[in-house]
Amino acid sequence: MVRVGILGASGYGGAELIRLLKGHPEVELVGFSSRKHVGKPLEAAWPQLWDGALFAPQEEVLERAEVVFLALPNGLSMEIAPLALREGKRVVDLSGDFRLPPEVYEAWYGIPHKSPELYEEAVYGLPELHREEVRGARLVANPGCYVTAATLALAPLAAVGALKGGFLVGLSGVSGAGREGEGTFFAEVNENLKPYRAGGTHRHIPEMEANLGRVLAQGRWPRTHGPRAELRLSFTPHLVPMTRGILLTAEAEVEGHWDQARLEGLYLEFYQGEPFVRLLSDLPQTKATYASNRVDLRPLYEARTGRVLVFAALDNLVKGMAGQAVQNLNLMLGLPEDLALPKEGLWP
Amino acid sequence: MVRVGILGASGYGGAELIRLLKGHPEVELVGFSSRKHVGKPLEAAWPQLWDGALFAPQEEVLERAEVVFLALPNGLSMEIAPLALREGKRVVDLSGDFRLPPEVYEAWYGIPHKSPELYEEAVYGLPELHREEVRGARLVANPGCYVTAATLALAPLAAVGALKGGFLVGLSGVSGAGREGEGTFFAEVNENLKPYRAGGTHRHIPEMEANLGRVLAQGRWPRTHGPRAELRLSFTPHLVPMTRGILLTAEAEVEGHWDQARLEGLYLEFYQGEPFVRLLSDLPQTKATYASNRVDLRPLYEARTGRVLVFAALDNLVKGMAGQAVQNLNLMLGLPEDLALPKEGLWP
Amino acid sequence: MVRVGILGASGYGGAELIRLLKGHPEVELVGFSSRKHVGKPLEAAWPQLWDGALFAPQEEVLERAEVVFLALPNGLSMEIAPLALREGKRVVDLSGDFRLPPEVYEAWYGIPHKSPELYEEAVYGLPELHREEVRGARLVANPGCYVTAATLALAPLAAVGALKGGFLVGLSGVSGAGREGEGTFFAEVNENLKPYRAGGTHRHIPEMEANLGRVLAQGRWPRTHGPRAELRLSFTPHLVPMTRGILLTAEAEVEGHWDQARLEGLYLEFYQGEPFVRLLSDLPQTKATYASNRVDLRPLYEARTGRVLVFAALDNLVKGMAGQAVQNLNLMLGLPEDLALPKEGLWP
Amino acid sequence: MVRVGILGASGYGGAELIRLLKGHPEVELVGFSSRKHVGKPLEAAWPQLWDGALFAPQEEVLERAEVVFLALPNGLSMEIAPLALREGKRVVDLSGDFRLPPEVYEAWYGIPHKSPELYEEAVYGLPELHREEVRGARLVANPGCYVTAATLALAPLAAVGALKGGFLVGLSGVSGAGREGEGTFFAEVNENLKPYRAGGTHRHIPEMEANLGRVLAQGRWPRTHGPRAELRLSFTPHLVPMTRGILLTAEAEVEGHWDQARLEGLYLEFYQGEPFVRLLSDLPQTKATYASNRVDLRPLYEARTGRVLVFAALDNLVKGMAGQAVQNLNLMLGLPEDLALPKEGLWP
Repeated sequence: MVRVGILGASGYGGAELIRLLKGHPEVELVGFSSRKHVGKPLEAAWPQLWDGALFAPQEEVLERAEVVFLALPNGLSMEIAPLALREGKRVVDLSGDFRLPPEVYEAWYGIPHKSPELYEEAVYGLPELHREEVRGARLVANPGCYVTAATLALAPLAAVGALKGGFLVGLSGVSGAGREGEGTFFAEVNENLKPYRAGGTHRHIPEMEANLGRVLAQGRWPRTHGPRAELRLSFTPHLVPMTRGILLTAEAEVEGHWDQARLEGLYLEFYQGEPFVRLLSDLPQTKATYASNRVDLRPLYEARTGRVLVFAALDNLVKGMAGQAVQNLNLMLGLPEDLALPKEGLWP
Repeated sequence: MVRVGILGASGYGGAELIRLLKGHPEVELVGFSSRKHVGKPLEAAWPQLWDGALFAPQEEVLERAEVVFLALPNGLSMEIAPLALREGKRVVDLSGDFRLPPEVYEAWYGIPHKSPELYEEAVYGLPELHREEVRGARLVANPGCYVTAATLALAPLAAVGALKGGFLVGLSGVSGAGREGEGTFFAEVNENLKPYRAGGTHRHIPEMEANLGRVLAQGRWPRTHGPRAELRLSFTPHLVPMTRGILLTAEAEVEGHWDQARLEGLYLEFYQGEPFVRLLSDLPQTKATYASNRVDLRPLYEARTGRVLVFAALDNLVKGMAGQAVQNLNLMLGLPEDLALPKEGLWP
Repeated sequence: MVRVGILGASGYGGAELIRLLKGHPEVELVGFSSRKHVGKPLEAAWPQLWDGALFAPQEEVLERAEVVFLALPNGLSMEIAPLALREGKRVVDLSGDFRLPPEVYEAWYGIPHKSPELYEEAVYGLPELHREEVRGARLVANPGCYVTAATLALAPLAAVGALKGGFLVGLSGVSGAGREGEGTFFAEVNENLKPYRAGGTHRHIPEMEANLGRVLAQGRWPRTHGPRAELRLSFTPHLVPMTRGILLTAEAEVEGHWDQARLEGLYLEFYQGEPFVRLLSDLPQTKATYASNRVDLRPLYEARTGRVLVFAALDNLVKGMAGQAVQNLNLMLGLPEDLALPKEGLWP
Repeated sequence: MVRVGILGASGYGGAELIRLLKGHPEVELVGFSSRKHVGKPLEAAWPQLWDGALFAPQEEVLERAEVVFLALPNGLSMEIAPLALREGKRVVDLSGDFRLPPEVYEAWYGIPHKSPELYEEAVYGLPELHREEVRGARLVANPGCYVTAATLALAPLAAVGALKGGFLVGLSGVSGAGREGEGTFFAEVNENLKPYRAGGTHRHIPEMEANLGRVLAQGRWPRTHGPRAELRLSFTPHLVPMTRGILLTAEAEVEGHWDQARLEGLYLEFYQGEPFVRLLSDLPQTKATYASNRVDLRPLYEARTGRVLVFAALDNLVKGMAGQAVQNLNLMLGLPEDLALPKEGLWP
């Protein structure tokens, strides 16, 4: 049993971590904190949980735990992670603080970075691409929902050097905006649909571009196409009137001659044996991944335009957040990667 | 490991059983059948499941299993249950076929009963009231969502003889109507709310009345009030624009002098130690029980009218259907009653 | 053309008034105010409106208008109504300030009443019961959604002296809680259902009781049953995951011998010729009244219990708020009562 | 008063036509037909309408009307339109039968065309582009929701010859699939999101391409860029869990040097004076167009990629169907184009 704690248990990510970790046979959940709820019972904040345990002060959680999940707002993790590491704890950070080079982070997040030295050590926690690095990591930067979907959707094309550009449309349920996200009142979201942060301004863009560049740079796959200039992606997120779920629809501009068979072959090979990536012969739908840690993918060659469409569906709070964090924990602890993580969804 | 099979895996109840049983450590799921899907892979019918197993013919499932779940339409279970019992299988029936005395069944369901002799043997599978009987049962009649909510909401008052009458309003998500339920197209259900089968015509009414009468007859609780005439309940179901969840709001006409403290005392005592009944100090909400096997209850004394309000929330596909069936299975097998059954919900 | 102004145009009621009044052939909308938005264009607050007009200061609107709608929070109307009346304006107040006797108001709303003398003059603006009084009124107290539904549902039984008591369940879409109502974030309301202010604490209860008592006291209908003691209603509101619409389900305890034919006869006679009350032979559903000023009613005799069920559906922002206010305006101005008010709904 | 009839009043388009035409001051609605409902009262099929009129046989409607709306399935209009024209009626057809050259129609719809000779006469009823032709038309082919959105979104760029290609993502509410559309059960659509007919197979694609080619060919705008090869668009529709509303998100590949100011200038000039096109300075959202005949547009220059994003929102049953048909009717009759058509939406 490993002693695990959670800092920031007042948000959806924290609550989902509690739910998953309470069902984890190798984890002892030794505490969870929230400035807002400290001293209150868990049920007061989270009516779905049946547990009289109290929100603890942050220091107590840090002290008791061997591994700490940081489910904190951007800008806070960079202050707390060094303290935890200094005390010999291992850290899985769910914020954006260690996902990008500090100078890129500062440019896109508008927050001065207080622990730039840790970026080098931090391992980018997308297990499908960085499984080995995660195993030994002290500090894991756990990627978010849009980026996980976009990276997994396009990684095979990037790996072989075929990805020239892409127009990505992200469609997200409202829980992605957090528990009391701005502009998420029911009466204004229901029966409504809208883009937001359009025009190349969403801060997940540099992370997607970096991930796909790194796949190519890893050189693990035979590069079948010429060297790539820097990749520039267009990404437009939309808010959809539902609670959970992300669908990413990508149109990729590709180099070389493609057809449906070759495309499917590449994806099958790339994701062979992955415990949480399912390649469909039909189009994905978010509901099929509800409450599971799975990603459903479908690449489609569009002959009329010569472009490749890729669809990815996942649950933004599980594979796009807390589930992925537990997947990283399992790797860090040398446990089976899928321990305590559902591969199947809730329907309807 | 016990070999378990499911007949009728094309409906939501069947799918939910598959999901729960696949995660059950003492169960080997040896087959599932559906006339509609026989020979097809599970995923073709259920995109949330990641499993290449094929729907099997009914006979095969019956043959392989030691315990059989019947998730069949009313009228079919009464044909198949005797066959299964004759082969030495134990049966959990999710239909209405064995929940009521045959003559009452025929009057309310309009279906001639083909196995009336089995009614006597069938155990009514509401564990909170009939736990001991279920343990030894060969045939369990698993109650449905509205009846489970109504019975658990009013059982304490009934047990002490205080329940004189009740006006019950049931509010149900759409999944209660089945996978392709009549009148459940999205565009006509969304942003809509309607009563149905009003005026004392819903066939769950006699089951509720019988259950509450039986609680009194059991005599396990000190009767604090005089003998009761036959109980007559008013029950009005409504369709609500959501997928899962039932809320039951009951106004009980009560005998004797009540106040909030005495009321809460009765419920606390009655449900003490129950693994799946939670008494709230706040009002229940369906979302808190989402995907869990829990019932949330709240009795409230209304001083202005001298009536008692009781609110009950549950997930109609779990505690109101498949979860309760697994709870009964656990009892039948002498396993911990809560094995493989979530007590906590999914939020948001 | 009558010059009309709106104070409090930042809420849903105000916006709905603007929409209805812009389509009114006898109204010139001379201004609308909002403390929050003053000086900003209408479109900045209300993206559905295509109108560059600016939110004006309150005094300007008051000065320009002959008739003023007050769509203000409880407690504010009682300050502004006397000013407007003193300037010779006529007033339709959408708040609760003039709906109840000041001492009752203070007890239920917890707000000291600053214009108790105006209560006597204020006309209760439910046209179906007080049409003639509204025509000559200077100050109309426009009733809200639950009360309109409950009163119209039970008025016929009350009028003949047959109503002994009632258990009322109100089911409301989220817009009833206002634009940024507490506890109305999408992710927590969607796929959720909950009662609130249960136990006889909702402040619409005394208004319902008073209305039904007044119907009896009016003595316009032959009293077929004996004198009534003070009526006590039980009312339990619920929040339903939809935006617009109210369904009221009432179980009435009645005196005398009733059957379905007699019941329908009473309702048909009582509401004969009403432009906005439709009696259905089927059960009502909220969607059928969407964006209309109609109420759909259905009384149902429940033989098993001897009780009467009545169902009422309406759009809480139209007949339950802004539409009813315009209906009152039409009466005050001697115009056709249904001018510029839709009798038919939007579907789907 | 013009005598107008509707064939095919059992679908959402027909019902919306009835609602709009009943409020039209220059129209006498002389009949509506539906094979399914003939002889039944309107309310039996459409609970939102309060009207005892009966569904009439098709021949009766045809005989009484001067102008006929055909809200029929694809393949039926081509049989009935010639009959109506022969009798001297004018026709607005809401199906796809006269929108494409017969050979293209046959290739994409898989239906042999029975009235190919009428295609030449039919006027494509998108008023913003073909206002003058519609005025004199006997037969108008009324475009659908996706095509209206896509065409209006990209027409300005096409008109000046700058549009080289485009990746279009369509997001639609469920009512676009019709009253009992396949795969639109609430429990499977709610909390779900999915693409459909992806990969260049949706039959609105050739219509979009043809429309944009025609804008260029009209030559009404100064062509600022070189001659275009045939335009090939990628279009991927998605089903979103809401009832009404379409959002089109387009990434346009453009020729020439663009920036935000030049882009907005072009759109402002192109749509100057249009009664139903609103250019926003913010991003569109579908709810703002709910129940209105308006299209909200926003072009956005994306500097990082050099592409142009255009967002369009409309109500698929109004501007995308019945409202546009009434707009065409107004033009055909020489009436104000916006008569009886709401420019403003319903919120919330």
